[in-house]
Amino acid sequence: MLPVPTINSFVPPHRTLMGPGPSDVYPQVLSAQSRPTIGHLDPLFVGMMDELKALIQYAFQTENEMTLAVSAPGSAGMETCFVNLVEPGEKVIVCRNGVFGERMRQNVERIGATAVVVDNEWGEPVSPQLVEDALTAHPDAKFLAFVHAETSTGALSDAKTLCQLAQKHDCLSIVDAVTSLGGVELRVDDWGIDAIYSGSQKCLSCVPGLSPVSFSAKAVEKLTQRKTPVQSWFLDQSLVMGYWGSANSGAKRSYHHTAPVNALYALHESLRVLAEEGLENAWQRHQNMHQTLKAGLTKLGLTFVVQECSRLPQLNAVYIPQGVDDAQVRQQLLSEYNLEIGAGLGALAGKAWRIGLMGYGARKENVALCLRALEEVLTQ
Amino acid sequence: MLPVPTINSFVPPHRTLMGPGPSDVYPQVLSAQSRPTIGHLDPLFVGMMDELKALIQYAFQTENEMTLAVSAPGSAGMETCFVNLVEPGEKVIVCRNGVFGERMRQNVERIGATAVVVDNEWGEPVSPQLVEDALTAHPDAKFLAFVHAETSTGALSDAKTLCQLAQKHDCLSIVDAVTSLGGVELRVDDWGIDAIYSGSQKCLSCVPGLSPVSFSAKAVEKLTQRKTPVQSWFLDQSLVMGYWGSANSGAKRSYHHTAPVNALYALHESLRVLAEEGLENAWQRHQNMHQTLKAGLTKLGLTFVVQECSRLPQLNAVYIPQGVDDAQVRQQLLSEYNLEIGAGLGALAGKAWRIGLMGYGARKENVALCLRALEEVLTQ
Repeated sequence: MLPVPTINSFVPPHRTLMGPGPSDVYPQVLSAQSRPTIGHLDPLFVGMMDELKALIQYAFQTENEMTLAVSAPGSAGMETCFVNLVEPGEKVIVCRNGVFGERMRQNVERIGATAVVVDNEWGEPVSPQLVEDALTAHPDAKFLAFVHAETSTGALSDAKTLCQLAQKHDCLSIVDAVTSLGGVELRVDDWGIDAIYSGSQKCLSCVPGLSPVSFSAKAVEKLTQRKTPVQSWFLDQSLVMGYWGSANSGAKRSYHHTAPVNALYALHESLRVLAEEGLENAWQRHQNMHQTLKAGLTKLGLTFVVQECSRLPQLNAVYIPQGVDDAQVRQQLLSEYNLEIGAGLGALAGKAWRIGLMGYGARKENVALCLRALEEVLTQ
Repeated sequence: MLPVPTINSFVPPHRTLMGPGPSDVYPQVLSAQSRPTIGHLDPLFVGMMDELKALIQYAFQTENEMTLAVSAPGSAGMETCFVNLVEPGEKVIVCRNGVFGERMRQNVERIGATAVVVDNEWGEPVSPQLVEDALTAHPDAKFLAFVHAETSTGALSDAKTLCQLAQKHDCLSIVDAVTSLGGVELRVDDWGIDAIYSGSQKCLSCVPGLSPVSFSAKAVEKLTQRKTPVQSWFLDQSLVMGYWGSANSGAKRSYHHTAPVNALYALHESLRVLAEEGLENAWQRHQNMHQTLKAGLTKLGLTFVVQECSRLPQLNAVYIPQGVDDAQVRQQLLSEYNLEIGAGLGALAGKAWRIGLMGYGARKENVALCLRALEEVLTQ
């Protein structure tokens, strides 16, 4: 036998999470998650899943039947949308204005499909004009894929307009709403979004590890008419839906995989909190807290990466002032104030900080702590 | 705006979980899981991941460097092993003696590889003779895949002998240890297992949703020499390992996906409890509880699906007596005793019950409750 490792229980400190996610988790979500595990086919659990579906539908503002939580993080939600809809040889217009557009491209290529990339500068929103040009130049494209809220830069793209363009050119839209869901306006049915995925750990303020997804009737039709099997068994929605069943139908569930029972308790509770607040109130709260943060950061002389008109309230990317040691500032905030802010990612690594105001994190006390701590560290 | 759903917090009852999983979760694991979420790149969290890797290595009895927890359930762990190692056009000998061998076959086919199926009856272990015949008949096979502990039947296969056969015929072995890990003898390095996956929700008595996996040096070499990209971005181990890093190396982690932070707290704690008990003690405890349960079930006139020599202590499949209403008995146990036992799956649906004695569930009080409740329900 190998030696027994001597390891103590892990007791994390209480951090204030103001990075790009995970965000501060609602205390009632942590409580919900620690309730006793029950069987994943228990009738009470199945009832909880039905409620969860209704809550996800509300958050997405959709009546899509195929709405559920993928039992894995947002990047698996992204993969779920691509591998279920896109078949080898098909063409996808992929908008890239940060890390996650590039990840979409990699998903398309791994399917053996063709990605036509529409590039915008990091920090800029996706340009509808460039998208329209690409759609016109590639009439055989079947999908338009873009990121609603780029977590790597803090740029918000105009999802409504982009989806209208997709429809005009007979394309299905695939939308990354990992950071947007719950933080800014998002209307899946009104805007005609065909496939969308998000993450539990951003503006929903749930624990990380789950990905709410939704597919329109048109997307489901595409899925049903596939000529090739979905390459992933785990993410194959035709199998997963047999497990999630129809909301309130009481239909018998067929076993697919074992759901992450306790994590789903947590998501149920976080979406319940969101419904109780009301979506529009939550959007407004994010905007209000962003205004307070922005005023304070500007006073500290910090400037934003993204122009005001397309700036996300929940993800504030600001340039690191010249002569300031990026890692040391973040390290000091973490060790002395138990405050996490995010480093830059990709093209912005070492150049920007990303300050998150997501879900439960979008509170006055968080903004106050962040501004005061940053001021102390930067001016010491 | 769509109407706001009016949904209360979900408060599950306290069940005793004696089905095929999820099993009863250790109370200290639920506590660990509800500790405050910290950032997934926080140095303290990275340290926790290093400890977790060491704990998984101990549970698997391996020094494999590529050892980690997939951020998704066991079926994603299965897919991780197959999509990383097997390339399109390659041949895999797949042993099928229950539901999960068949799932392995489907994984192979979705890769565009060829599955040569070795069938054994449901309830029987995999026959080394049939495997040797298949390996001899297919000298171009590159992999031997089998399920160590078939959760659908309760049959234990001889992993040591099967892996020796794989080596003799120059094949890599892929082993499903979802139900075996922590419940019966399993020695990854001694037995020469090349790729193995398990689940958090069986004999580890952790919450469902994670899949510990490990790859031998030979498997890593195969992965490194791939001619085609791994079809899944989310499960691509060459990317994931950049995130998990080398144990205790202190190397910088590169962001891949956001780890399910709180679920990993839970897995850390459950493996810590296992290490504290000691693997061999845990194996013996499962055996002891099984003997007590077996004596009681036999007294009730119930007979086992699997012969004694290959019977799993942690998964007891027994035939439903003639004239007994399967669903009604399980329903009564659940509603009156808060006791869950498992239904039959696949070929055994409606014909057998599956009584789990897994991890924290393998206790005298559980066995006593199960025997007494079954007696009351069956003889009323």
